[in-house]
Amino acid sequence: MTVTSPAGFRAAGVTAGLKASGRPDVALVVNDGPLAVAAGVFTANRFAAAPVLWSRQVVADGEVRAVILNSGGANACTGPEGFADTHRTAEHVAAALTAAGVETGAGDVAVCSTGLIGERLPMDRLLAGVDAVIAALTPDGGAAAAVSIMTTDTVPKTAAVTTGGYTVGGMAKGAGMLAPALATMLVVVTTDAVIDADLAESALRIATSLTFDRIDSDGCMSTNDTVLLLASGASGVAPDPASFTDAVTEVCADLARQLIGDAEGASKDIDITVVNAATEADALEAARAISRSNLLKCAIHGEDPNWGRILSALGTTAAAFEPDRVDVAINDVWVCKAGGVGESRDLVDMTGRLARIVVDLRAGSASASVLTNDLTAEYVHENSAYST
Amino acid sequence: MTVTSPAGFRAAGVTAGLKASGRPDVALVVNDGPLAVAAGVFTANRFAAAPVLWSRQVVADGEVRAVILNSGGANACTGPEGFADTHRTAEHVAAALTAAGVETGAGDVAVCSTGLIGERLPMDRLLAGVDAVIAALTPDGGAAAAVSIMTTDTVPKTAAVTTGGYTVGGMAKGAGMLAPALATMLVVVTTDAVIDADLAESALRIATSLTFDRIDSDGCMSTNDTVLLLASGASGVAPDPASFTDAVTEVCADLARQLIGDAEGASKDIDITVVNAATEADALEAARAISRSNLLKCAIHGEDPNWGRILSALGTTAAAFEPDRVDVAINDVWVCKAGGVGESRDLVDMTGRLARIVVDLRAGSASASVLTNDLTAEYVHENSAYST
Repeated sequence: MTVTSPAGFRAAGVTAGLKASGRPDVALVVNDGPLAVAAGVFTANRFAAAPVLWSRQVVADGEVRAVILNSGGANACTGPEGFADTHRTAEHVAAALTAAGVETGAGDVAVCSTGLIGERLPMDRLLAGVDAVIAALTPDGGAAAAVSIMTTDTVPKTAAVTTGGYTVGGMAKGAGMLAPALATMLVVVTTDAVIDADLAESALRIATSLTFDRIDSDGCMSTNDTVLLLASGASGVAPDPASFTDAVTEVCADLARQLIGDAEGASKDIDITVVNAATEADALEAARAISRSNLLKCAIHGEDPNWGRILSALGTTAAAFEPDRVDVAINDVWVCKAGGVGESRDLVDMTGRLARIVVDLRAGSASASVLTNDLTAEYVHENSAYST
Repeated sequence: MTVTSPAGFRAAGVTAGLKASGRPDVALVVNDGPLAVAAGVFTANRFAAAPVLWSRQVVADGEVRAVILNSGGANACTGPEGFADTHRTAEHVAAALTAAGVETGAGDVAVCSTGLIGERLPMDRLLAGVDAVIAALTPDGGAAAAVSIMTTDTVPKTAAVTTGGYTVGGMAKGAGMLAPALATMLVVVTTDAVIDADLAESALRIATSLTFDRIDSDGCMSTNDTVLLLASGASGVAPDPASFTDAVTEVCADLARQLIGDAEGASKDIDITVVNAATEADALEAARAISRSNLLKCAIHGEDPNWGRILSALGTTAAAFEPDRVDVAINDVWVCKAGGVGESRDLVDMTGRLARIVVDLRAGSASASVLTNDLTAEYVHENSAYST
């Protein structure tokens, strides 16, 4: 159920002393092949961190041998010096892996970092950690790697699917989406399927667009978000592209749900589905606007089926709909009908962890869902006390 | 210092029993002329409430005799019945004013409502309140009116400026902007200057674009936001258009600052100024994106000069800038230079109520400011317990 569930991968996690807490903070995933196929999806934030700038170049040729990840420092907004630190880390990983018998160039080593923005990494400790994590590599090290990338996560997130003779595994950290909370989203997905770089790229794009792109914890986009897919080909099975894309999507969806379920301070998960939209883009715009309403997120926290706040958010979008035709259900009770009062809000059971909101735009046949969470005093506390 | 500071106005506030709290909830402002010139600016929310739909029509001809306002119910998402309630309220005000000697048609009575969305108003109590508030009208009733429109406001908000022989007065309620918190923003500005409807319209548009449009408490846009300007002409002074616009802007800016200062749960005011932008639109887009970062608002609450969260928000915009040329100051300390680490964050004094953020895009010479507030556990508490 981890990145080492597929054949052909080793991983490890160690404590390098980057975190004041003394918790594990350096992870490594190595693809032992025979293939070293890879694809990546990265943050759209214009202040992309040094490791993002680096890793974008590394995956551009569709080949990655290893991914080194650290928590305890994002290496973002650290200028040319920060980029040099990332470069040096990749060089160190490549040299040490080569010395350990895995011929690797720095250009095939992706780097991921997460933690506070605007601080240089302590390179002596990080590079010592690289040596330690290479020494610790094992074919069942996926669980240790998943622990080492945690920041404000309360539990490690891992997943795996085996189907048709090959496996897709994965790990994730963070509390948001490709617009996540302070806790940058880092995801590594591995597979032993035999695929080429084109399929890796298309499968990962589709999977992320349907999963990580549709969770939104607090509307904030990190400088470091990275999703990588590595394929070893060790199963010898060349899957059908559609079923492979489904398997990657399934693992990403599982990890995405775990991310929202562990979002900072959250006490409720909120599933917002917009149906009968004119286009999928309309449905997504509407669902995303609703998912970003602080007022709605507070109401759900208070177990208040406050559909007025759903309409208020919907009313700020350009999606096609007539205000007096919109229906809204909360946990299966249609509390708003035709843009006005519907069934009694007293019928809505809000006691569960999940709140399911359905918005019917009556404007077409497209739909989309966004998963978010409530806004709580704990969120405020975690994020006001973070760097101090 | 109220809507009755200018000559030619009477106002009052009474308790009609719309609020469970038993606090005052109905206000009336009457323009005794000689002019009845008016202009209005309304929410852009597509789920505009019944009183907004009504009042837009009322001000369309540039003439308003009276404004009836109620707290304790927004009359939003209440369908044709809700609109009929608003219409009936205006008819009742017009008839009662006419009986009291102020010849008025319903088409010259603007209506403003604030409170919970999706509930009908108790019309019997509201109409009895209309009779009571007309009986209570006085030339110094502005303060009572300002109290009667409060919802989650902790203090009434009023302002006035006297210049060049005429006065501009105003009152406001709410905790946000034209994208405000649950507590819809309602503003009535009065003047005894001699102006025509065109100047009323242009002065109000400019004033709101520079003031209420540039405060943003929580990014949520109400269904009921309304800003009205009424001119009586009672001073006999026909001011220069530019200086009149300045006076209206000054009153609106004063009220806007009071709104942010009393925002729900806020413990800090945050002034975000973007300078050296390529265009004013770029500066405003950047400032607004920063003002809507929950993570930054939490950091400021925790007195943490976390400039990384400023860059993260800036990086999501399309404003023209080079990431490695951006500087950021917090309370006059340039903590970020050229997109990286600048002066020590330890130099920043965050203990005051006001946090001043300056972002230098180095891309031109335009600038804009947005005023917001921090995100606190109290905000969550107020908004999760609101309707229950």
